[in-house]
Amino acid sequence: MTLQDFRCCALVTRYADARVLDSVVLLQAHLAARRVTTIALADERVPGPPPAGLDLVDEATLVERADLVIAIGGDGTLLYAAGLVAERGTPLLGINRGRLGFLTDVLPEDMLATLDAVFAKDCQIDQRTLLTAQLRSGDRLLRGLALNDVVLQKSETGRLLDFETRVNGRYVNTHGGDGLVIASATGSTAYALSCGGPIVEPQLDVLVVTPICPHTLSDRTVVVSGRSEIAVTLVDRPDSRALVSCDGRTLGELLPGDSLTVAQSAFKTTLLHPPGYDYFKLLRSKLHWGRRSFDPPA
Amino acid sequence: MTLQDFRCCALVTRYADARVLDSVVLLQAHLAARRVTTIALADERVPGPPPAGLDLVDEATLVERADLVIAIGGDGTLLYAAGLVAERGTPLLGINRGRLGFLTDVLPEDMLATLDAVFAKDCQIDQRTLLTAQLRSGDRLLRGLALNDVVLQKSETGRLLDFETRVNGRYVNTHGGDGLVIASATGSTAYALSCGGPIVEPQLDVLVVTPICPHTLSDRTVVVSGRSEIAVTLVDRPDSRALVSCDGRTLGELLPGDSLTVAQSAFKTTLLHPPGYDYFKLLRSKLHWGRRSFDPPA
Amino acid sequence: MTLQDFRCCALVTRYADARVLDSVVLLQAHLAARRVTTIALADERVPGPPPAGLDLVDEATLVERADLVIAIGGDGTLLYAAGLVAERGTPLLGINRGRLGFLTDVLPEDMLATLDAVFAKDCQIDQRTLLTAQLRSGDRLLRGLALNDVVLQKSETGRLLDFETRVNGRYVNTHGGDGLVIASATGSTAYALSCGGPIVEPQLDVLVVTPICPHTLSDRTVVVSGRSEIAVTLVDRPDSRALVSCDGRTLGELLPGDSLTVAQSAFKTTLLHPPGYDYFKLLRSKLHWGRRSFDPPA
Amino acid sequence: MTLQDFRCCALVTRYADARVLDSVVLLQAHLAARRVTTIALADERVPGPPPAGLDLVDEATLVERADLVIAIGGDGTLLYAAGLVAERGTPLLGINRGRLGFLTDVLPEDMLATLDAVFAKDCQIDQRTLLTAQLRSGDRLLRGLALNDVVLQKSETGRLLDFETRVNGRYVNTHGGDGLVIASATGSTAYALSCGGPIVEPQLDVLVVTPICPHTLSDRTVVVSGRSEIAVTLVDRPDSRALVSCDGRTLGELLPGDSLTVAQSAFKTTLLHPPGYDYFKLLRSKLHWGRRSFDPPA
Repeated sequence: MTLQDFRCCALVTRYADARVLDSVVLLQAHLAARRVTTIALADERVPGPPPAGLDLVDEATLVERADLVIAIGGDGTLLYAAGLVAERGTPLLGINRGRLGFLTDVLPEDMLATLDAVFAKDCQIDQRTLLTAQLRSGDRLLRGLALNDVVLQKSETGRLLDFETRVNGRYVNTHGGDGLVIASATGSTAYALSCGGPIVEPQLDVLVVTPICPHTLSDRTVVVSGRSEIAVTLVDRPDSRALVSCDGRTLGELLPGDSLTVAQSAFKTTLLHPPGYDYFKLLRSKLHWGRRSFDPPA
Repeated sequence: MTLQDFRCCALVTRYADARVLDSVVLLQAHLAARRVTTIALADERVPGPPPAGLDLVDEATLVERADLVIAIGGDGTLLYAAGLVAERGTPLLGINRGRLGFLTDVLPEDMLATLDAVFAKDCQIDQRTLLTAQLRSGDRLLRGLALNDVVLQKSETGRLLDFETRVNGRYVNTHGGDGLVIASATGSTAYALSCGGPIVEPQLDVLVVTPICPHTLSDRTVVVSGRSEIAVTLVDRPDSRALVSCDGRTLGELLPGDSLTVAQSAFKTTLLHPPGYDYFKLLRSKLHWGRRSFDPPA
Repeated sequence: MTLQDFRCCALVTRYADARVLDSVVLLQAHLAARRVTTIALADERVPGPPPAGLDLVDEATLVERADLVIAIGGDGTLLYAAGLVAERGTPLLGINRGRLGFLTDVLPEDMLATLDAVFAKDCQIDQRTLLTAQLRSGDRLLRGLALNDVVLQKSETGRLLDFETRVNGRYVNTHGGDGLVIASATGSTAYALSCGGPIVEPQLDVLVVTPICPHTLSDRTVVVSGRSEIAVTLVDRPDSRALVSCDGRTLGELLPGDSLTVAQSAFKTTLLHPPGYDYFKLLRSKLHWGRRSFDPPA
Repeated sequence: MTLQDFRCCALVTRYADARVLDSVVLLQAHLAARRVTTIALADERVPGPPPAGLDLVDEATLVERADLVIAIGGDGTLLYAAGLVAERGTPLLGINRGRLGFLTDVLPEDMLATLDAVFAKDCQIDQRTLLTAQLRSGDRLLRGLALNDVVLQKSETGRLLDFETRVNGRYVNTHGGDGLVIASATGSTAYALSCGGPIVEPQLDVLVVTPICPHTLSDRTVVVSGRSEIAVTLVDRPDSRALVSCDGRTLGELLPGDSLTVAQSAFKTTLLHPPGYDYFKLLRSKLHWGRRSFDPPA
């Protein structure tokens, strides 16, 4: 993939966050000086008063006009921005607010230099797999895209889910527990990691299927081919129901008789990284590797 | 891959095991009736008196003559047999002694029918990745092959290892703990699973790198591309040393200054499975899936 | 503790379950033959038509009249029955529907003999700690009792909780994740086990505090003295809220500014076990111990 | 317990460590100025040239003369010192080399002030349970004491252990795996934590029994009463043997027919802590709590 010239940059952020506002003002000036048009998302999901002089647009306009999206905030902000432009394929740059995120891997102090590197096309282009979820619920078919994960969770406290999984139509297991995370390699370091899953190199063509707090203690993560289709159905019980979400956004409810299928999408997300980007360095930083949890006995 | 006709079958087993002897006698008669030559391994690794009438051969002769190897015992017996014929590529059939193994997936009661199916080429041919380990220790270069895993372990009780890992020359982490398992997808359900690793579909082209009892609690399994080269070196401390083994067979000792590299081998192991073979069914059986560890609160 | 004579037995069960109905009929006849009054709970929580001739009573009457409660079903049924008589201290006997539960440890085929043993006072009397939860929510103070656990959980999919824990007023940690399980020793083998907690001998005077899918991978179970008071508050964020439940029954909602405190109750639950009851045998049965997950390499 | 006046302090350290030497010189001068006799251990286990003017003594003399032991180094150094004076009950103060240890909880910059606080008896006195191990090996009976843990481990790479555990004579489980950690509450944050065990408040009267890389994935930590006796025997197989160590020091070898029993010792270890000592603060520091492993999705 080769990058186009960037004539219109879109900022996606939560203006309420004071640390973010400073970055927005700096970016605005920097982009203006480089004669790049700047637009910014005005949306009820992104509350707070925006800085003066920002050209606020709605989601549809942003998707149509932007040829670079700059997400400023945590990984959640980038996930949201990635969802907006998923089908368009617009490249994204993620700027964090003071520490690194897995997806927002540019620090505020490095953002202007990184932006210039991106404009000079001196950056890493990183295409990540997107997941597509199809939820057949009664007569309805709901579709969602996810960069990190599609999650099935019990919808009420105290009620356990019993559900069956199939891979390419082959029966895998009947699980009891709180739910299931179906993650891309990218999402392996997000919620799936908290549920006990492994870290998977982002470029690997796999799906990571991790049960959430399973009853059966041997009900471990299964890593399957990225070309697999995972299907999930609930075991039929009177009050059984589950919530399905894509990157933390609710897609819909799964009831007995419904089915959820997850596979790779034909679309990909394009992340831009600063020149020195190193995935393992990011892991070391995020996971406190090399700083020992306790002393060796000597 | 298409199967050749099988004219010479080699039995690899531990004759001391009474359950095994019965199977050997039955196989011998069955193969004779089908005019297939039967040879059997005579080896100090396989102790006990063999049944009468067996044509006992040494390892080299077995490798040269056999066009099918039948391993009778646990997965360890099949791993040993797979090691013998790794460079030759001879197909293997694994017969367990009463319950299923991950690799020895034919039960005694099914073995004669399975064998006939194999002779009729009505069986599943399953090519599995082999790992190659290179241990540069001082002036020496030791090489080993493994179907399941290459394991680095502390060589004495009470002494912790500090070691560094690199993937394709890129630094990953400095680990403290009992060691490291570098498993193939096949080996993900062996020792790596006990160390907290995920289950990986056997056909996936990945390496599964799992720390053993790591100090740093965020030092999780990392799944990397199967085309990666993993390098491990010890942190230089006076009495630091580790043992390296391939599928449980000691390869040698790693000292500070030495290096261990692990990658996929150019060779593959060919496993034959009975017609109805289903990997997920095997998982369900081995891991007691679907039989709940405890009751739901209702 | 010494047992009183049992003159009135109360059955607590879900009549809709066919396996249960058979047991109820058998128990009814057996108790009548021994001139023990039998009452049974009629309650919207226990749906389905009861067998003919049962003296159906409401919860208050059951609590007042029963001097033995027989819970027939899964552990959830016994938890519900234990909640009813928690302040009264009525002994409970748990009969499962075909396999053992941690709390319902009498099999249908043994229930009549066990009942006779109980009447002969030839049984094990097992007093278990109850937890008391206090949820200060705005002006309201909600109280709950739990035999297994008090659970704090996020109340919506996709929204993570940030919460602080204190033990006897001392700050322990700020957690990010799906929630927290505060279990008694009894509850250590229920939900807490699925969340990664240890098995704790039921008689130990401890509280088991286990985070649910924590962000920080070193955020492990902490076992503290049973005489501790655990306090939990939410980190103040606009849309932060959590659900609190006792043994799976919703107690209420926790918002920023509210507090949840959990400690041992002054009440205890009295479980009766058949003469040969052995906690470790129950563990072996429930957890499939001794049946290996995979073969050793030989 | 009330503290005696301290007239003779013993230093236990590894002089080869440059960071340690500076501390020793400072302590020597500080103790001399306070007219406290200073002795220091000369031992092949503690190599390197000691600073000039130190009164070097052997282990027996140290044990007899010291009424305070100052361990300077990592937790391993304190464990060694604690082993020396275990039967004598001499109080110990642990000074780390730059970061906190679980047992060496005084930083070099605080050590002189802490020492003065100790002399003024303005410190926390923390009595910790010791474990006693008895290894009956053939005709021999070997005894060991441990502050952290008694560990059973396979003695060779590639050979799995099969062993049985009993608590107070009652059979618990037959385990397959790399071994077993029997830890005190103090030791719960040492090796047992790496093996998946829980954190246990140091004052709790419990034993923490944690399998090392168990085959059976439901073979979890069991926490039992501190007044229990744990017995371990090997399953009889030709080449089965295990190493037993106490706080990382080899006690002996366990063969089929031998038995290892572990219980609380009648002796206790007395640790002295600086006035502001807070166990949970130590946990937060050691385990990087509150610094998130990854960002929440927002």
